[in-house]
Amino acid sequence: MDYNQQFFSEKSVRVEPPSISWLMRLALDRPELISLAAGFTDKSTLPLESVREITQRILSDPERGQAALQYGTTLGSEALRSATTSRIQRLDEKSSSLISRQKVEYIQQSTPLNPEQVLITQGSQQALYLILEAITDPGDIILVEDPTYFVFLGLLQGFGIRTHGVATDEQGIRTEALESKLEALAHSGEIQKLKALYLVSYAQNPSGRSTRYQRKKAALDLLKKYEPAAGHPIVLIEDAAYRELEFDTESSAPSLLVDPADRDRVFYLGTYTKPFATGIRVGFGYFPAVALDKLFNLKGLHDFGSTNFTQAIVGEALISGAYDEQLSKIKARYLSKARAMEAALQKYAPAELSWEFPKGGLYIWAKLEGNQSTGPESAIFKRCLEQGILYIPGVYAYCSDPDREKPDVEMRLSYGAAEIPALEAGIQRLCEAIRA
Amino acid sequence: MDYNQQFFSEKSVRVEPPSISWLMRLALDRPELISLAAGFTDKSTLPLESVREITQRILSDPERGQAALQYGTTLGSEALRSATTSRIQRLDEKSSSLISRQKVEYIQQSTPLNPEQVLITQGSQQALYLILEAITDPGDIILVEDPTYFVFLGLLQGFGIRTHGVATDEQGIRTEALESKLEALAHSGEIQKLKALYLVSYAQNPSGRSTRYQRKKAALDLLKKYEPAAGHPIVLIEDAAYRELEFDTESSAPSLLVDPADRDRVFYLGTYTKPFATGIRVGFGYFPAVALDKLFNLKGLHDFGSTNFTQAIVGEALISGAYDEQLSKIKARYLSKARAMEAALQKYAPAELSWEFPKGGLYIWAKLEGNQSTGPESAIFKRCLEQGILYIPGVYAYCSDPDREKPDVEMRLSYGAAEIPALEAGIQRLCEAIRA
Repeated sequence: MDYNQQFFSEKSVRVEPPSISWLMRLALDRPELISLAAGFTDKSTLPLESVREITQRILSDPERGQAALQYGTTLGSEALRSATTSRIQRLDEKSSSLISRQKVEYIQQSTPLNPEQVLITQGSQQALYLILEAITDPGDIILVEDPTYFVFLGLLQGFGIRTHGVATDEQGIRTEALESKLEALAHSGEIQKLKALYLVSYAQNPSGRSTRYQRKKAALDLLKKYEPAAGHPIVLIEDAAYRELEFDTESSAPSLLVDPADRDRVFYLGTYTKPFATGIRVGFGYFPAVALDKLFNLKGLHDFGSTNFTQAIVGEALISGAYDEQLSKIKARYLSKARAMEAALQKYAPAELSWEFPKGGLYIWAKLEGNQSTGPESAIFKRCLEQGILYIPGVYAYCSDPDREKPDVEMRLSYGAAEIPALEAGIQRLCEAIRA
Repeated sequence: MDYNQQFFSEKSVRVEPPSISWLMRLALDRPELISLAAGFTDKSTLPLESVREITQRILSDPERGQAALQYGTTLGSEALRSATTSRIQRLDEKSSSLISRQKVEYIQQSTPLNPEQVLITQGSQQALYLILEAITDPGDIILVEDPTYFVFLGLLQGFGIRTHGVATDEQGIRTEALESKLEALAHSGEIQKLKALYLVSYAQNPSGRSTRYQRKKAALDLLKKYEPAAGHPIVLIEDAAYRELEFDTESSAPSLLVDPADRDRVFYLGTYTKPFATGIRVGFGYFPAVALDKLFNLKGLHDFGSTNFTQAIVGEALISGAYDEQLSKIKARYLSKARAMEAALQKYAPAELSWEFPKGGLYIWAKLEGNQSTGPESAIFKRCLEQGILYIPGVYAYCSDPDREKPDVEMRLSYGAAEIPALEAGIQRLCEAIRA
């Protein structure tokens, strides 16, 4: 008998290969391509020496070494969870000059973050997975930004979740756009299915924009306002994966965790390994206690705890300062590459191509004025491919929304993996392909 | 508004903390307890030096080091997947003296295992999770052994799966017991919900027994026979997590993958880190190609691939021989501890306590004749606790089965974590508690 739909689960029938898997295959099959598509870390900055020293240190000490090579706990290493709350608080304090009330709260230590509300995960991807598993059933609704992190859209599709996109501008999510979405959902009654708003709030993938604190706060207040109509909480998932990769930390916004009154509705996510070494994969989430219990139980089923050895490595990197050293290095490197890419754009771009300099991260998000598509079937994409250039078509970063078509005129250009000369050549050829 | 059931998913409402979480908490709160419960690896045998050397070697080589600290692929490291199929084939060839036909097949290399059908996972736990996610919806049925791996029972409950237990003896699953279960399910029509039989086929947790090849083969043939009634494939999940921890490899059975004709119905699982270093967590599954596609897509959503760095470590350990060295060491250690525990049982056990010497792994499964309960509320369990002894009550290793009560007269005694003098003292006090 052949395998058939009766054998597999409804979920596995729903789940599709990632929208960009064909792009990934292309990049593998044609290694001569200049990939402006991949979200890989810059190879030359990977902290080989630092990880070497740290593993030596841990494994030369019998007690620490044994602990690192033994099972850990489902919640994750206590040292790492404490380091995590301290780090979030420090980041929030540093960036709270505008909102002194909260700063005072932290300084008084009256309401510190609680390490028992941190769950260590396999990168922030697993945290996203566990959240959706804990709070959604097929048919539920989640709001996302227009545009948003396209990998998350694949997750939503796998879970059978319906989506709406909320317009954004250079300060992040637009409050009135969110309000009118909420109003429409309340009007249709569908708000009972609405579980969360998902924001990538720092150096967003793909737009490179950071959300202002006031915008996040306004969004959260709006969600709260509509909870009675929903009949249940509506949470804000603050995905801060790129927070530590912001170029200018002086102007950085505090997270929504800064106000203790908001913490009951914020699912805050981060990762240590995007800015350090992606091959190590240690992420985390900070959750309201009730939600943490559910996530903890699910995590127990998945793997009863993330890899203990890599948690020990990241913990030691944080405590020893190796992590911050690496962070300065990698940020300087990305900044110089972002500048090189922008310089090339300034030199070669046709008038119809526009972009903003990113707040951080690995991407420049560029937009083509007029009606020229940048999609995977477009003439521009195909000419780029002929020229040996790959980019991520902007259309992938838009959710399915019954109220609009997916915009199809943008591209995500990554300066993460390629070297500067290749970036320059890549942008030159990309611009030629657009002009042609 | 408070968090309520409307907010959380059906699944998260179903998922409960692990049945033994209170036991784990007890062990943490009272460190003076002698734990015969924990499934931890023996601390003193953890391969600190070997992992130290391997990480040095990998990270001192820029090319290998960069590859290890970068994202990998969703399927997992190619080197590790190839090492995995080679290793399974070698184990199967070594143990195939009884079934020369298959041995010839392998020697001819006409139908080798395909590394593209291996998926690397976060321990074999994640492989179990992905399998259930790929092939079950709530209400489906899975058959398990009586007794079975209790962590898997927690998974089944989380997925809302109904269960039936199949009787076993010292050679593994009993063919006629399986047949009568299948017949009953066919008769009631419920067989349409039956997706799989789960066997822990080597040095089973908790029984310590290994399943004879002929028994596995007969089980698989029976499942095939009932597929027309089911209307879809019924697969056999062969969990070989303890395969490499069998004490006597001379008499070891080949896996069900040995016969190419069976591979289309076998989901084979293993782990590299139970016998090496549990803090590293690298497991794998070998799947029929159609099923692999589904599992691959799900894995992509979970974490788009397991930790690359730990895969590099395990790959190097396998290739360099460090893994096999460690395996000999740890097996010798477990064998001596199993013998010490058995010697203590022979010395102290009352006549009503019986056990078999395990084929491998970390556990002795002991049974109390008569009607004395060993359950968590039993007098024996409580007296043990007063004596400072923890064990896993046997009742946890039995699934809910509408056709029988859960047996409640056994205990799983682990010699994994405790030192030999503590094991001896533990068994002495346990036996006193039973007598009392």
